[in-house]
Order: sequence, then structure tokens, then C-alpha cells
Amino acid sequence: MYRFTNDYSEGAHPRILDAMIRTNLEGNFGYSNDPHSEQARQRIRNAIGRPDADVHLLVGGTQTNSTCLCAFLRPHEAAIAAVTGHICVHETGAIEATGHKCIAMPCDADGKLTPEAVRAACNAHSDEHMVKPRLVYISNTTETGGVYTTAELEALRAVCDELDLYLYLDGARLASALAAGGASLQDLARLCDAFYIGGTKNGALFGEAVCILNPALKPDFRYIIKQRGGLLAKGWLLGIQFEELFADDLYLKVGEHANNMALQLKQGIAALGYSFGSDSNSNQQFPILPNHVLAQLKNDFHWEVIGYPDDTHTQIRLVTSWATEQQAVDAFLAALISA
Amino acid sequence: MYRFTNDYSEGAHPRILDAMIRTNLEGNFGYSNDPHSEQARQRIRNAIGRPDADVHLLVGGTQTNSTCLCAFLRPHEAAIAAVTGHICVHETGAIEATGHKCIAMPCDADGKLTPEAVRAACNAHSDEHMVKPRLVYISNTTETGGVYTTAELEALRAVCDELDLYLYLDGARLASALAAGGASLQDLARLCDAFYIGGTKNGALFGEAVCILNPALKPDFRYIIKQRGGLLAKGWLLGIQFEELFADDLYLKVGEHANNMALQLKQGIAALGYSFGSDSNSNQQFPILPNHVLAQLKNDFHWEVIGYPDDTHTQIRLVTSWATEQQAVDAFLAALISA
Amino acid sequence: MYRFTNDYSEGAHPRILDAMIRTNLEGNFGYSNDPHSEQARQRIRNAIGRPDADVHLLVGGTQTNSTCLCAFLRPHEAAIAAVTGHICVHETGAIEATGHKCIAMPCDADGKLTPEAVRAACNAHSDEHMVKPRLVYISNTTETGGVYTTAELEALRAVCDELDLYLYLDGARLASALAAGGASLQDLARLCDAFYIGGTKNGALFGEAVCILNPALKPDFRYIIKQRGGLLAKGWLLGIQFEELFADDLYLKVGEHANNMALQLKQGIAALGYSFGSDSNSNQQFPILPNHVLAQLKNDFHWEVIGYPDDTHTQIRLVTSWATEQQAVDAFLAALISA
Amino acid sequence: MYRFTNDYSEGAHPRILDAMIRTNLEGNFGYSNDPHSEQARQRIRNAIGRPDADVHLLVGGTQTNSTCLCAFLRPHEAAIAAVTGHICVHETGAIEATGHKCIAMPCDADGKLTPEAVRAACNAHSDEHMVKPRLVYISNTTETGGVYTTAELEALRAVCDELDLYLYLDGARLASALAAGGASLQDLARLCDAFYIGGTKNGALFGEAVCILNPALKPDFRYIIKQRGGLLAKGWLLGIQFEELFADDLYLKVGEHANNMALQLKQGIAALGYSFGSDSNSNQQFPILPNHVLAQLKNDFHWEVIGYPDDTHTQIRLVTSWATEQQAVDAFLAALISA
Repeated sequence: MYRFTNDYSEGAHPRILDAMIRTNLEGNFGYSNDPHSEQARQRIRNAIGRPDADVHLLVGGTQTNSTCLCAFLRPHEAAIAAVTGHICVHETGAIEATGHKCIAMPCDADGKLTPEAVRAACNAHSDEHMVKPRLVYISNTTETGGVYTTAELEALRAVCDELDLYLYLDGARLASALAAGGASLQDLARLCDAFYIGGTKNGALFGEAVCILNPALKPDFRYIIKQRGGLLAKGWLLGIQFEELFADDLYLKVGEHANNMALQLKQGIAALGYSFGSDSNSNQQFPILPNHVLAQLKNDFHWEVIGYPDDTHTQIRLVTSWATEQQAVDAFLAALISA
Repeated sequence: MYRFTNDYSEGAHPRILDAMIRTNLEGNFGYSNDPHSEQARQRIRNAIGRPDADVHLLVGGTQTNSTCLCAFLRPHEAAIAAVTGHICVHETGAIEATGHKCIAMPCDADGKLTPEAVRAACNAHSDEHMVKPRLVYISNTTETGGVYTTAELEALRAVCDELDLYLYLDGARLASALAAGGASLQDLARLCDAFYIGGTKNGALFGEAVCILNPALKPDFRYIIKQRGGLLAKGWLLGIQFEELFADDLYLKVGEHANNMALQLKQGIAALGYSFGSDSNSNQQFPILPNHVLAQLKNDFHWEVIGYPDDTHTQIRLVTSWATEQQAVDAFLAALISA
Repeated sequence: MYRFTNDYSEGAHPRILDAMIRTNLEGNFGYSNDPHSEQARQRIRNAIGRPDADVHLLVGGTQTNSTCLCAFLRPHEAAIAAVTGHICVHETGAIEATGHKCIAMPCDADGKLTPEAVRAACNAHSDEHMVKPRLVYISNTTETGGVYTTAELEALRAVCDELDLYLYLDGARLASALAAGGASLQDLARLCDAFYIGGTKNGALFGEAVCILNPALKPDFRYIIKQRGGLLAKGWLLGIQFEELFADDLYLKVGEHANNMALQLKQGIAALGYSFGSDSNSNQQFPILPNHVLAQLKNDFHWEVIGYPDDTHTQIRLVTSWATEQQAVDAFLAALISA
Repeated sequence: MYRFTNDYSEGAHPRILDAMIRTNLEGNFGYSNDPHSEQARQRIRNAIGRPDADVHLLVGGTQTNSTCLCAFLRPHEAAIAAVTGHICVHETGAIEATGHKCIAMPCDADGKLTPEAVRAACNAHSDEHMVKPRLVYISNTTETGGVYTTAELEALRAVCDELDLYLYLDGARLASALAAGGASLQDLARLCDAFYIGGTKNGALFGEAVCILNPALKPDFRYIIKQRGGLLAKGWLLGIQFEELFADDLYLKVGEHANNMALQLKQGIAALGYSFGSDSNSNQQFPILPNHVLAQLKNDFHWEVIGYPDDTHTQIRLVTSWATEQQAVDAFLAALISA
């Protein structure tokens, strides 16, 4: 059985696992008040080119999004997001549970939010009888594999400046976005008020690194992390992982490998004449395949079903990661050819 | 430097680390929908003698407490806890952040809540102008090292039955409580509506196992875990750890070792004539030592300061764990003798 | 200046004002624990044909909706509503502020939610990574003047039964809906789990009467009212108003008068060949009028602008109430003819 | 039956009722966007000597406290209050329901919070594992009749400045406090970041006027009012009442009458040798009376029971208001003498 189910099916990248073994019996202070966490934060500040950034290490993505929006927004303020955005759909109302409405705006198949959609959301909210849009949430890559270019982020930044909105980027799959030629870490740090660098889906056992650039959003962030259950007791575990991910460009390499595997899948599937639900250049591919073909593959490969475009076809999601082996890709394409 | 700072200063018990290495490249489904998590849940159900229990694996203690109370209480319902209780003091208002008041009741130096205190809390809340006490929160061991006996838990259960209250037990340090002769796992499962078995402070890298016994509290608990950011993507990491902790009585052994180290400290310190802030038989000791003695020890040992009983003495906290070495205890006592 | 701005531009219906004057110096117990409130509750129980109903008197509509949904839903549960629904748009995120997502579903110009839309919302929410739809929110009349028939409510009830959903009806403009031939009070009480009878827009100074039919939703509702700031100290003021509204069918008469005025407007405007944004038979009318005509009327009449269908037309909202005088309607139609 | 139950047992002061009758059929814009509300806000700004104040009109006290604290505090910030403070006890956890902990501090029988208690609360909260004290809540008069002097408020202001805390005053019974020689309205406006002027207990049917002095607390307050259900549709009803209360010193006169009645009770009771639970000079008196005496009075007078100091005595609360008649006071004292 080969798994293309998601990018969090295996444990840690071997270098990270080695680091955890190596440091297991070190004594460290808790709650990320340790040298590994400090080194990780420093390496991230270097990588994003912002020595003034506040960097915080959290455990998971939903936790990170809800902690950030809880910290950044006043009670009547709302987030604007693509209708497919993770916070709108797949976090069990975590943002609403902190009291904030998510304003879901239409987007294309690539899942990217446009400045026009942001402006439309603001135009529709005019007075104190409605929530006040205050933060733009985007994910990079998006939930459907889209990658924001620097120009696209600059355009979003401009509309945020114009309308007094924060720009927040969910980087659960940021390694893949970076490797796909999306906006660089330095551009993210220049254009966002805050963003997070995902670890869980990019080689870590777990962990997401929040970078806060806007000074207004920095105060007391650790209080909110703690209150929301995200302050890991053995916080150096987060430190060790990001320390390793940000040594020798491991973070980028992880994304490059995942994308390489995904693009081989894309090209092989396309060469057989099949179409895709979205034109992704990142580690998620959304081919539309005949049901009878999938029936032949399903015993050897695992994927997620996205939808049923018609009675004889199914759109599936294939996800690759640092752990995807060439052999799995080859096997899938071979099986597809012979199906 | 020997650390008696806390019980989460080192990584994982070697057996747990081995299991993580062994399984690192296994492919597993996410969110604890994997065979390791299922096996862990099954071993816990066996250990507590309740095949009907719902067992859920979360990451940390504050997360677990706030998820449980959020799931169990209606908006106007409140928790009763000892004034020293973790939820009253050291969770940055996590319970209040879910909308619920913590009613802090007096307790003795051992940190245990009595049936009388529970009854007093209920008597003070009479109508809809006040919150409605609905859940009794206790921790075992308590924050000051106290251990609940079976008889004490039975008395709390009786008052909870009488006053229509849930009984919830925070087992962050449960291994130590079990090893100290406190109420057994089976007794906890018989007497509590829900409780959690702490992993973070008992040999795991992280992880807490919630056991829900009361059927009324079971529905949709995973929704609340997810909403509150506690559903770990690579959930089998939790499974692996509890699988190991509940094989061959490792969980009890971890507590026994920690207690053994703590009791050697206690006896050694007492033999020198020093007194203690509370009479603990578990892995936290609270000696009151002369400032000039502490000044001599502080370069070689680390502890937390609890308070200043007078101008010449300080109450400190010494904590032991599975990772505490005999050498550390010997060194501390030797240093104390020669101070 | 004649006002068609809304249905809460004047004080109380004269009979209500008389009752308030008459009882001003009576001494009464607070918080609706008084004979007037009890009599009001009893008259409402009689009117809806449900002696078993719990009836609670609150001050305003947003307060009532957020108190009810806060009381009825567990943290991960969501409300389904029409995209134009009051809770989705015009309550400043009050429902989200209690932690619950509002799932906004498409609806027609009449603002009514269909069983198909309810089913579609549930189909789109499948597991614990998403909120759990649990309550259907409808308003009667809708925000665009639509009126639910008994058959339509029965169909919604059926889908709610099938999908384990509560049916909740916002009756801010219920007098108008009843007078327009919509489902009767008895039908509402038979088909809804809870609903509220609006006072503010139907002759009262303020006040909304919540009727809870489903026994599972009744416990401790007064705690939630108090916690959310809705327990009026001089609660008999609410009692007096509903006592009067539910004597001699005043509630229905108020709706009949408002509708009579609105239908005269509708017929007069339609007779001049103008079209409407929705086909309302209740106290809100949404004509689309030429901008040059509105320019001539604007000094003598007040309305709300809804939108701009094209460059030369504007859709406005005309609202009537118990206080609308025949003279105002006549003046508007005369002005329209001569414009 | 004479009522000393509370200060919200009767309707409106006759001047207010007259104003409501006079304006009943005026057409007004909703949500306090009307000339009466504007005039009321202006008169209050004049009375407190702060033309820069933001003044908002809400319906009730719990609603006002929870709206203010919700608006003023970030999620991890807490309020410090006397253990007897209204928000700590009698608001069904309304503050916690907005996510904030109330830190209850000891106070004397007069219910006043001291700078020492404020400092102690801050000293006990040191890092991000605990909530961050950010606002001092006081009520004037206190729940037990205490009245803050200008000097006392200045001392609280000084400690708030030192410790970076907001000072917020609950003026549910402010008319009585002003009439009792407490800090003036101008002093409140000089020393508090925000406070509210209570209407409900001081002659209005309902209504509380929030005065926000600190510019940092002003933005978007109306959004929070609306979200929390406090934006009254017929908002001019609040305007009319405060317009009247702040014409011709009616607000002060109402407090003077209530205090005059209360002090006659106090003196008469004391003259008979009875003691009091607290030494109040305001409109609440807390005499301790023999049970056999109370048994004789209970058919003719109504009061609240506060507690049972011993087996033969009961502490009761007698409350007076603008509506208390001389005859009631005379009758009570006469009955007491002959009991």
C-alpha cells in the first residue's frame, strides 16, 4: 500500500529524529525557554531577514490559527478568507469558538483570495450592525495547491493597507509553496503582519513557527498561547525540530522533494489525457479519474476523494511529502497506465 | 548542574524513544485513527477496568483541562476547585476563556479538596443570578504533592452524587499518585465521571489520555478536541507513547522511581531537622531551608522557589521524575549536609 | 416628514402606554418574578395552545437570538440560516461571539430557507473536522418580507427530524407574518423547538417572548438570560406589555394594521407599473423606483435604500407598523403619482 | 405591604414617565441615533465636565459591565474586584462568559477595594502562566453600601497608574453615592478610565450611561454593544430618561431622597440599640435584628435576608429609592418600636 493520503502520514525527517535522539536526556527548561528554541527562533529570524520578528513555536495548525486570530482581533472584528480556506471549513469552527466570524469569499479553483474579494467583503460590512473585517487570512499553498506569487501578495498588502486590515498567512504547506517559486520567506516577512511556517507537513513530527512582524500584534502573545493550550511543556522539542529544519536549507529541500514527486505524478497523469480540478504546481494534485480506473488502483494506493464531477469520474487528491519515495510515484503511474 | 526544577525537563523514557524510532517511517492515518492509538486506548481501558470507557489522546495538560470542561459544561455552569488548583492559578484563565467560572475553595497545605468545601461552594450559589456549580475539579497528585485515597474519592463522589456534580480528576502527576498508594486506576474509573492519565510528566514526550466514564459526557468529544486545537495530526505519536506506558506496567514503574527518589530526598532533609511546607509522599517535596544553605547549593542544583516563610528561610520545590538519577539525590543530600 | 424607515420608530401602542402609566407605582418583584409577567406568560401559553411551554421575556431581538443559541447549542454545534438571515448579517457576529458558526445557505428573494438548503448544509459537514449543524434558524417574516406557510414549516420540521436538528424561529415581525396568513401561533408551537414572539416591532416599547417547546432546551434558561445581560431588573415592564399584546387579540390587530398599510402601498406602487425586489405580502415592501422619482420624494418621506439594480433605479424598503397612519400611505402614493 | 426589597420595585420617576408619554408618538431614528439620546449624552458630558467623553446608553447593569469589560480587555487580561463585587457574585459569570477571569480580593464590610488589595492581586500574577490583571472594577456605592471618597479614588488611580491598570467604576447606585458625599461626577471623570451612571436604580425604567474617558477604550464601542445585545432598537427611550435625569439635578435629587429615607431608618434602628453589618450612609442599610422581631414585621414589610450571625438574629437589607415614601419609613420604625 502506497499512501498519497496526506503529508503527515510518517514521523520525522531522519535528521530531525537524530536530533531528538541526541538530545533526549539533556535537561532543559520548559515552555521553549531553552537554548534550542532560542536557536531555532534565531535561525528563523535570519531566514526571513527580520531580526525584529517575534517568533513563537506552537504544536499544530488549527491551534496556531486560532491562537493568532484570538490574539490579534478585538471581539467584533472578523477574518476574511477564501470560502475553501482552512479556517472556514476544516477547523470545526475554531475561529468562531474564539468569538470571531470568518467571512467566506469566493475564490477560483486555485483557492487564492484576490484583492477584489477582500474589497467586496469590506464593502458589504458598513456599520456597527455588522462585524468589522480586520484581518485577511490566506494559506500558502492553498487548500487546493495554489501558490501566491510575490506580486499577488503585494497586491493583497496594498488592499490591506488601504482598508486597514492585517494580512495573515497560514504556512501549513509553506515549504512546498517556497519550492514552487512562490513568494520568498523574506517577501512574506515584508508583506505580512504575521505568518506561520509549518513544520508538521514539512518534515517535523509536529510544530508551527509563528512570525509576528507588526509590533502592534506582539505584546503578550505567550499569554494567549498558554491560555489556549499551545505552550508545550517540553518546548525544546519544538526548538530542536525548527533548529534542524532551518539548518542547511533543510526546509526548502523538504519542499523540493515533495514537489518533485508531485510534479512527476502530475505530468504522468496528464500525459495519459486525464484532467485536473486545479492546476497545482505544489505537493497536492487533484486529478479527475474514471471510477473504473480508481477501482483497480484502490487496493494498492490510498488517496482522499474530493468530489464526483459526474457519474463515471471522481476527483481525488494525491499528496506527496518529504517521505514520498520515487518507487511510490513510479508504481502509481505504472498502475494507472495498465488500468 | 542537577535539576529538580520539574518533571518535564528531559525527553522520553528510553522505551518510548525506541518505539518512536522503530515506527518512524510507518505510514499511519492521522488524528489518532491508527492502530497504535487504538491499541493504546485498549490498553488503557484494560488498565482502568472499564471496557466501556471512551479514551482520547491529547497533547498537554492545560489543553486537556480546558477541552474537557468546555465539552462537559453548559455556559452558566462552573467548576469547583481548590484555590491552589492548576485551573485556578496556572492556566492563564484557560477555563474562563471557555466561558466558565472556577470557584476557588480553601484547602489545606496538601492541596486536597474536601466534601465540606464542595458543599460550601454549592450552598453559596443559590439561584440564576449566580453561576451554577456543576463539576468538581481535583488534581492527583495535587499541586502541593497531596495524594487522594480511595476513601477520600468515595467521599467526594458521594457529595457529587448528592449535589448533582461531575467529578473530574486531573492526572498530570497520576503515576506518582498511584505509586504513592493513592486510589487505583480502577477506583478512579469507578468514582470519576472523567479523568486524565498524564503522560508529559510521566515518561512521555507529551500526551495526556482522557478517560470518559459518564455516557452523558461522551458524545462528540472529538469535535471539541479538534475545535480547541488538540487533535494532533500525527496522532499515532500519542498512541505509541501510551501503548508503551501501558505495557509491562511502565506507567507505574515510572511513578515508583520518581517517588523513590523524592522520598530519599524527604528523609534525608528531614533527618537534618528541616521542616516542609506540606507532608508529601509523592514526587514533589517542599522543604523550608535556610537562605544561607540555599546560597551554597544554588550553583549545583536547580529548584523552584515557592515562598519566603520568614526573612531567613525559603520554601522550595524539589521535583523528581523517571529521569532523576540516584546520583542527583545523593549529591543534593551530601551538599545539604556539608552546607 | 412621513417615516417608512422601520417598524420601531415610535413608542408604545396606546393601550400599552396606558398600562404602563396605570401600573407605574405598583411595587413589583424584579426579574419577571411578578404577577404581570406570569399573566403574560399564561396568556402566551394559551395563545400558542401549549400549557407546557416555557415562556421567557427578553428585551431585544439580537439579545434573544444569541441567548437562545447560546443556551441550545454545544460548543461545536452550528446554526443553519439563510444567507440574508438576521443572525448572518445584522447582529455584529453575536452568534459567533457565543462561539457558534452560522452556516449561511442560499435563498430566494423572499428570504426563506428550504429543506433542500438545510440538507445541503448537513451534507457538506461530515466529520469532526467541521462544525456540526444542529439548529435551523428561520425568521418569520423574513428579512425580505417572506412569510412561511404551515406546509413550509412542516417540511422544515420533517428535515429537522430526519437530520436531528432543532428548528428555531425568529419572530421579530411575527405579528405581520400571522396577519399575512402565515403559519399560526399554534402551528409554530407544534413545529418549532423554540421560537420568539416579537414585541419591539409590533407595538411594544421593547420585548420579545421566547417560547421553548422542546423539554431538552428548557433547563436553566434563566441562568443564560442573566449571564448574557437580558434579565431586566424591572421585568414587569415586559410582563405588562405582553399582557396587553395578548389581550383581545391586540397582537394580531397590530399586524393586520401594518399589513393593511403595506398592501395599500404595494398595490398603489404596482398600479403605477413599478416592480419590486420581492413579492412581499407583509409589512415590508421593496419597490424599485426611478432615481428621479425618489429625488422628488425624499424631502417628505424616509425609507432605507437596499441597492442599486441599475444606474437609474434604486430598490428601497418601505416599512409599516401599528403606528403608520392612513394619511402617510395616501401622501406617499399621491406624491408618487405626481412625481 | 411596604417594600424595602430593592431600588427597582417601581416604575419611572413621574418626570420621566411624563417625558415618555409626551414623546410616545414622535418618530425617531433607532439605536440612539436620535436627538433625545444626543441631548442626554451632551447633558452627561456637561455634568461630568468632560466634553471629550464618549457616552453610550445601555439597558441594564450586567449588560453594561460585561459589554465594557469585553470591549476593554484582551483575552488573557483579568479584572480585579472585591470578593463581594457584583461581577464576582451576582452576574452569573457574565465576565467569565466573555472569557475573562475576575480576581476576587478581600475587602472590609463596606465592600471597598483598597490599593493594597490591588497591589497584592498584581503581585500574585507574575508571568504568562497566569492571567494578567488589567482592570480594577469597583462599584459605588458598593454592594454593602460603602461610598468611595475622592481621596480613596485618587489612591486607587495612583496604584492603577503604577501598575498599568484601567480603573472602571460600576455606578448602578451612583446617585446615592453622590448624595452621600462620595467623589463627584467630575472626580469620577478625572480618575476613572470609564464608569457608568446607573439609571435603573435611580428613577429610570431602565438604562445605564457609560462614560469612556480613556481614548484607548473608545474605538468601536458601539460594535460591542450591538454584538452583546445591548443596542436598544427604540434607543430614544434611553435618551429621554437620561435627558430628564440630567435636567435640573434630578439625578442628585433622586439620590438625596433615597439616602434621606435610608438614614432615617438607620438612625431609628440604631436608636433602639440594634447593630448593623456595615456602617452605610447610602440607600442600603444592613441592620441585625432579632428573629422574633422580624417575625412580627414580616407581614407588613419586605426585605432581603443577608445572613444569620447567630441563632437568634438575622442580618437583613433595607433598600430605599426615589419611590420610598416617608410613610413607609415611619411605619417600619413604629413597628420596630412596638415589636
